[in-house]
Amino acid sequence: MAVAPMPAARRTLAAVDLGSNSFHLVIARAEGGTLRVLDRLREMVQLGAGLDDDGRLRPQAEARALACLERFGQRLRTMAPGTVRAVGTNALRRARHPEGFLARAEVALGHPVEVVSGIEEARLVYLGVAHTLPDPHLRTLVVDIGGGSTELVIGEGYRPLELESLYMGCLSWSERFFPKGRIGEEAMREAELAAEVEVEGALGRLRRLGWARAVGSSGTARAALAAARALGWARGGLTAQALRRLRRSLVEAGRVEALRLPGVRPARARVLPGGIAILHAVFEVLGLEEMTVSAGAMREGILYDLLGRLHDEDARERAVAAMMRRYHVDPEQAARVEATAEALRRGVAAAWGLADPQAPRLLAWAARLHEVGLAVAHAQYHKHGAYLVAHADLAGFSRQEQEAVAALVRGHRRKFPRAVFAAFPKGERRRLERLCVLLRLAVLLHRDRAGGGPLPRPEARGRRLRLHFPPGTLARRPLTAVALEQERALLAAAGWKLAVEEG
Amino acid sequence: MAVAPMPAARRTLAAVDLGSNSFHLVIARAEGGTLRVLDRLREMVQLGAGLDDDGRLRPQAEARALACLERFGQRLRTMAPGTVRAVGTNALRRARHPEGFLARAEVALGHPVEVVSGIEEARLVYLGVAHTLPDPHLRTLVVDIGGGSTELVIGEGYRPLELESLYMGCLSWSERFFPKGRIGEEAMREAELAAEVEVEGALGRLRRLGWARAVGSSGTARAALAAARALGWARGGLTAQALRRLRRSLVEAGRVEALRLPGVRPARARVLPGGIAILHAVFEVLGLEEMTVSAGAMREGILYDLLGRLHDEDARERAVAAMMRRYHVDPEQAARVEATAEALRRGVAAAWGLADPQAPRLLAWAARLHEVGLAVAHAQYHKHGAYLVAHADLAGFSRQEQEAVAALVRGHRRKFPRAVFAAFPKGERRRLERLCVLLRLAVLLHRDRAGGGPLPRPEARGRRLRLHFPPGTLARRPLTAVALEQERALLAAAGWKLAVEEG
Repeated sequence: MAVAPMPAARRTLAAVDLGSNSFHLVIARAEGGTLRVLDRLREMVQLGAGLDDDGRLRPQAEARALACLERFGQRLRTMAPGTVRAVGTNALRRARHPEGFLARAEVALGHPVEVVSGIEEARLVYLGVAHTLPDPHLRTLVVDIGGGSTELVIGEGYRPLELESLYMGCLSWSERFFPKGRIGEEAMREAELAAEVEVEGALGRLRRLGWARAVGSSGTARAALAAARALGWARGGLTAQALRRLRRSLVEAGRVEALRLPGVRPARARVLPGGIAILHAVFEVLGLEEMTVSAGAMREGILYDLLGRLHDEDARERAVAAMMRRYHVDPEQAARVEATAEALRRGVAAAWGLADPQAPRLLAWAARLHEVGLAVAHAQYHKHGAYLVAHADLAGFSRQEQEAVAALVRGHRRKFPRAVFAAFPKGERRRLERLCVLLRLAVLLHRDRAGGGPLPRPEARGRRLRLHFPPGTLARRPLTAVALEQERALLAAAGWKLAVEEG
Repeated sequence: MAVAPMPAARRTLAAVDLGSNSFHLVIARAEGGTLRVLDRLREMVQLGAGLDDDGRLRPQAEARALACLERFGQRLRTMAPGTVRAVGTNALRRARHPEGFLARAEVALGHPVEVVSGIEEARLVYLGVAHTLPDPHLRTLVVDIGGGSTELVIGEGYRPLELESLYMGCLSWSERFFPKGRIGEEAMREAELAAEVEVEGALGRLRRLGWARAVGSSGTARAALAAARALGWARGGLTAQALRRLRRSLVEAGRVEALRLPGVRPARARVLPGGIAILHAVFEVLGLEEMTVSAGAMREGILYDLLGRLHDEDARERAVAAMMRRYHVDPEQAARVEATAEALRRGVAAAWGLADPQAPRLLAWAARLHEVGLAVAHAQYHKHGAYLVAHADLAGFSRQEQEAVAALVRGHRRKFPRAVFAAFPKGERRRLERLCVLLRLAVLLHRDRAGGGPLPRPEARGRRLRLHFPPGTLARRPLTAVALEQERALLAAAGWKLAVEEG
């Protein structure tokens, strides 16, 4: 809002990474197809360590996080909506009922805060790393050890081929196997074996594709390489041998405070035992000899993903198209429903507050995917479709977006599921319920899976919607008239007032 | 148990159909590949009308049903297990918590009572009808109007190509549109339009395949044809014109009691207005000119399905194989897990009561399908797999079988889901929990997706299981040792005691 529109090719973009260990902010300027970094901020918030046993965020951790986001927010105040993407990962995935925190985080930051799945995190990491590599067309294994999860990706160029997200990170592993910073040989062996079991679960899928080089990103890999180089154990990348020497020096130090590794900050040292155990397990199970280290990370991936959205290469559009193909959705019916739903939305955009750019996107995705559940079974297919949309690995989507599209698919026929929408924050709930009413009507008007007859003119106010059809339409289409009458009753049961008129 | 085993080709088989309107018993003798009917019983139980608004079975309706099943049970007392299949349809699908009734029904009948989905009902109807038709290789549309659901099937030979089950039946439509038996022109038109809306939902899929002839089964079609013939309005099949005349005579009679249709019993007349409205809607929407009528029904389909099971043509095996292909399950991994699970089951079959023929079947199906959820997403794929198995249209499966396999898939990794098994009746729950423990161990032993190492000898007692490995196995397979230790902890949290030993 504060800045004038600017050609996409020269726009300033920002990424915020709400990691389990640190929060990061990167601001960059798009120059042609690449990015020039203008500014970087990092704070060690340790959000992952701030969850209690029930998955609730402790007040001190929340206060640390909000204070950090406020500082980031000052820097982002002048940025236009849609040019900032803030993404939470494992700590917020694990958090129970993060909605309250997310709402406060958005206020502090001044921009929406999303939560992404481990697989989406892996995709963004790969995108960030791939943009830092020489000869990106080599098939590459990327290993990213985060605070609460470890992402393993095989890709070529900017295209990931296999994405894995494992439930182990340098923070969680350090807390579990090295409590109070004590590092013993037995604890290290246990931590490694537990990590090897996790990596083994992904081994088959990774080995099937193979790779020409291995690249580590994230603080663990960077700290390990920095220390190994400073100690003269490595020159190019991090070798298996250098890693074994590092591991030995950790065990010999016996506790985190006694660690004196050149190039490793104390805050990093605290999570290094868990990180080294995981890294060692990855080397062992995947049989790695050497790993180069990249400065790229999820935050750069977010920036390149944003850049793609500005250039009509939205990963979400491709993901929806791929899901339609995978589940054999009838593309003609989807297109008919999408066009009618969008026409209805335009007709009520002002009255129902559906004029922002996200509203037509959510409606279009839901229209394209509303029949996806037919692949499971005809009975209750709206529920199956909602399940698939909510749980699929949809590249580019945040959890909130997937849940919104799933709710629209869930509600597109039969009873209007008020309880489903009640799970969303209030403003979002109202928008989604309104989009759902439009989707239902678009589906109803195309029940004949053909032309669908004349489009009604919609008129909306609060929970009332009036449809004006051209004279004679309903007499010529008696089944549509019956279906509209049934729909009126279904909507009335959920507190909506649908009126159908001619003329 | 009471009869000596007999060659499958000469065995006596029985089918019980617990329909929404009537219960049927058919007993037949297998003679080569066909069946000769020995006995038929029918009682008008009207189970569908016996559900209250909350979906609970009213005591009088339950008493009627159990009395009928006891009479059927007398006739079936000498039949061997596996030669009788009793199947409930729409009324029992709609019933909330039918477990109590089903347990009492099994005692009354002396044989298990299953509930099948509308799609499985449609498949069985088609199988029954196809065996009555001349030239079964013609592409055929079968219309079966039951008490609470209407099945539409297109098939060729004994193979259904498209199965539809719609939520309308002669009983439910008569109650909804013709209360107290009053038949008016307006009510008839409303009933027809509401039915047309339902049929229109399936029209696209049916029209895509097309058909060379239409065949009606069920009481509505038989009564309509009998009346039309007796009145001289039809000679061969039931024409659209004869159906219109019948419809007119219903409206002219004005109420059910005044109906005087030759060949139509009073009990049938009570549900005829709804049935005729549905039949008329099917003719209208599908553009039918004439329909022949078949005496075949679901009960004959059940008998032919049982005959197939005795001849190694189990529809369930084919359905599981098709689901594996559809969701790209790795067949080699599935086969490894199946073989190991089955070897473990044989080892504890006596101690854990898993020697009956159904136990290895459930275990094998779950082993083949345990990775099916990977097609949705890697994260939590055991939950996605359970969802798909529970909701898929799996030919030949009863609901109970699908839910049992889904529970095994759900429990095959991570936390042992006691709450999932708690939903099953007590004896079944114990069996399923034990099968689940075996499946978990088989999956664990094949985490490397390769040979899997030596098979342990299992020793079971109550909730204890001891695995004896050959000496040295665990030192050679440290990841298996770690995984077994993790599994010990996961099982201990659910009250199991897993012990691992060498020698």
